[in-house]
Amino acid sequence: MEANMVESRKKRTNMKDVAQLAGVSTTTISRFLNGDLNKMSTKTAARISDAIEKLNYTPSAAARQMVTHSSKMIAVIVANIDDYFSTELFKGISSFLEANGYIAVLFDSNASSEKEKGIIKTITSYNFDGIIFQPTSSSMENINSEIHFEIPMVIVDRNLDTTRWPQVLTDNYQSARKATLSFKKEGYEHVIVLTSKIDSVSTRRERYLGIRSTIQDTDIIEISEETYNRKMILKQIENLLNKNGKKTLIFALKERWFLEFIPPLLSKGYFQNNKITTTGFADTSIARTISPKAKLINQNPFLMGGISAELILKILKREKIKSKKVIVPAKIK
Amino acid sequence: MEANMVESRKKRTNMKDVAQLAGVSTTTISRFLNGDLNKMSTKTAARISDAIEKLNYTPSAAARQMVTHSSKMIAVIVANIDDYFSTELFKGISSFLEANGYIAVLFDSNASSEKEKGIIKTITSYNFDGIIFQPTSSSMENINSEIHFEIPMVIVDRNLDTTRWPQVLTDNYQSARKATLSFKKEGYEHVIVLTSKIDSVSTRRERYLGIRSTIQDTDIIEISEETYNRKMILKQIENLLNKNGKKTLIFALKERWFLEFIPPLLSKGYFQNNKITTTGFADTSIARTISPKAKLINQNPFLMGGISAELILKILKREKIKSKKVIVPAKIK
Repeated sequence: MEANMVESRKKRTNMKDVAQLAGVSTTTISRFLNGDLNKMSTKTAARISDAIEKLNYTPSAAARQMVTHSSKMIAVIVANIDDYFSTELFKGISSFLEANGYIAVLFDSNASSEKEKGIIKTITSYNFDGIIFQPTSSSMENINSEIHFEIPMVIVDRNLDTTRWPQVLTDNYQSARKATLSFKKEGYEHVIVLTSKIDSVSTRRERYLGIRSTIQDTDIIEISEETYNRKMILKQIENLLNKNGKKTLIFALKERWFLEFIPPLLSKGYFQNNKITTTGFADTSIARTISPKAKLINQNPFLMGGISAELILKILKREKIKSKKVIVPAKIK
Repeated sequence: MEANMVESRKKRTNMKDVAQLAGVSTTTISRFLNGDLNKMSTKTAARISDAIEKLNYTPSAAARQMVTHSSKMIAVIVANIDDYFSTELFKGISSFLEANGYIAVLFDSNASSEKEKGIIKTITSYNFDGIIFQPTSSSMENINSEIHFEIPMVIVDRNLDTTRWPQVLTDNYQSARKATLSFKKEGYEHVIVLTSKIDSVSTRRERYLGIRSTIQDTDIIEISEETYNRKMILKQIENLLNKNGKKTLIFALKERWFLEFIPPLLSKGYFQNNKITTTGFADTSIARTISPKAKLINQNPFLMGGISAELILKILKREKIKSKKVIVPAKIK
């Protein structure tokens, strides 16, 4: 890995090469890299973009620092600020950055890949020093094309099949498996899984597989973040509970679904005998106060935020990063 | 008011006047207004700042558009994203702006006036088109000096003694009064008020005065947002409940305190007879699921966000704004 880096540094094409191939001045190249696209024609921009691609040119951090002046702003893109995970993550990022003279700036994709694309476009056109990014989808297909150049970036809470960016993750599979196992020991044989759309996001898939590795009899209720009908979902859960004779565990793959659906089931008395119980990923004290005795899985998003912030500052300082994937283990308590 | 505006427009000093007095070029002035302070000495910046103050120069929206190119980014500063009010407000702003080709960008003061100052400094130095601002304190003393020039700004959720910026507010006094009145009719004679530091923020003062206008026998529990100890606060509430023989209403001045402290009191059985009851300002469905029968005050932060976004776009388009204070009535239900 390191040998490779040294080699690629020797061969690194520089701004002059790009300028020559595109037939423009280096000033124009630096404008392009700065995102000052207003000052050039679309034709010129396209020519530069082509030249960059042909030469596989990546401005070094140093080159970027020369052409851009640091704004001390780090963009944080979260998939949905309605999730407590996201606000806690942002608090963690923000407090670490603040202590180092940077400011964290939050963008909300609102669970929409279209909006996410627009945000990435805006960020890469303006003077942000780096991005900490929780994508709406693990494929990143949607936005790969929007990331013109090597803006420092850290991916959080999504497991991607790439080493292009460092990733900060929870041990989703293991912690979901461990929690399920402890309920299996108490005789639970059936799981109702409450989740957002499961296929598009690694986090959810891993959690589901962790559950399935322990208890095979599972029902999934997929909830659309934009358009769900609370009463209908509740009805679905109750139907499954009444149909199935086994001891059942209701497993919320994220806190929001726990907070939305567990209290009404509680007040209807479903958890009074031990035939039905509940668990889920939950990071705030509110989930705890709703169900004081529940065993919950805590991801520590604040710490995940702090680690992501530390990583992005390391990249900015061109320090070596030891691990491309940092796993922050969740706690079950 | 309008006559005044026409008059001041005739007399408006322009960029040339400022350049002349400061002894620099208009390009330098426009750099200053753009916040490109890195490209000039501190001395020059100070001279320009003095000249602007002496001439009472305010760049018109048109002048600003000439010197800055629009970034299509609106900065939203909230007092604390841990409050559901703030995230809902942001969702409202964001969806309205998005529909109009703008992007909302969130900054979190984290209940710290020091941090707020740093954020204002950053925003006014960079290329944001406007600010929607929920200050940590109603005095604004802290940050008045940081706002060099007339960046379009809308204040939300704080009632300020100024007409410099439009304000979007709830009818805090009236809605707190109305809610308290309905409980007084049911025989409640004593109120325990759960609030963050009450003196610094208009919203809280108004709500408290609304309560006091109806029931005089009140106890206030002030909770520090940064350092509160849950158990201690709970103990305080319980002591007050046990000491006072009257029928008591626990009134949470914001949702976070409702969610933190009502569930544990619920599970301890405090609300089982009707001697003790609860209400509060609460905007999410979670408060409702915790206490399905509680009468709660809903501010509609999403709508307040939408209105703030509409106002900032009007200012950007130099449209006339009818009312300097927009009151969005809260609903009690």
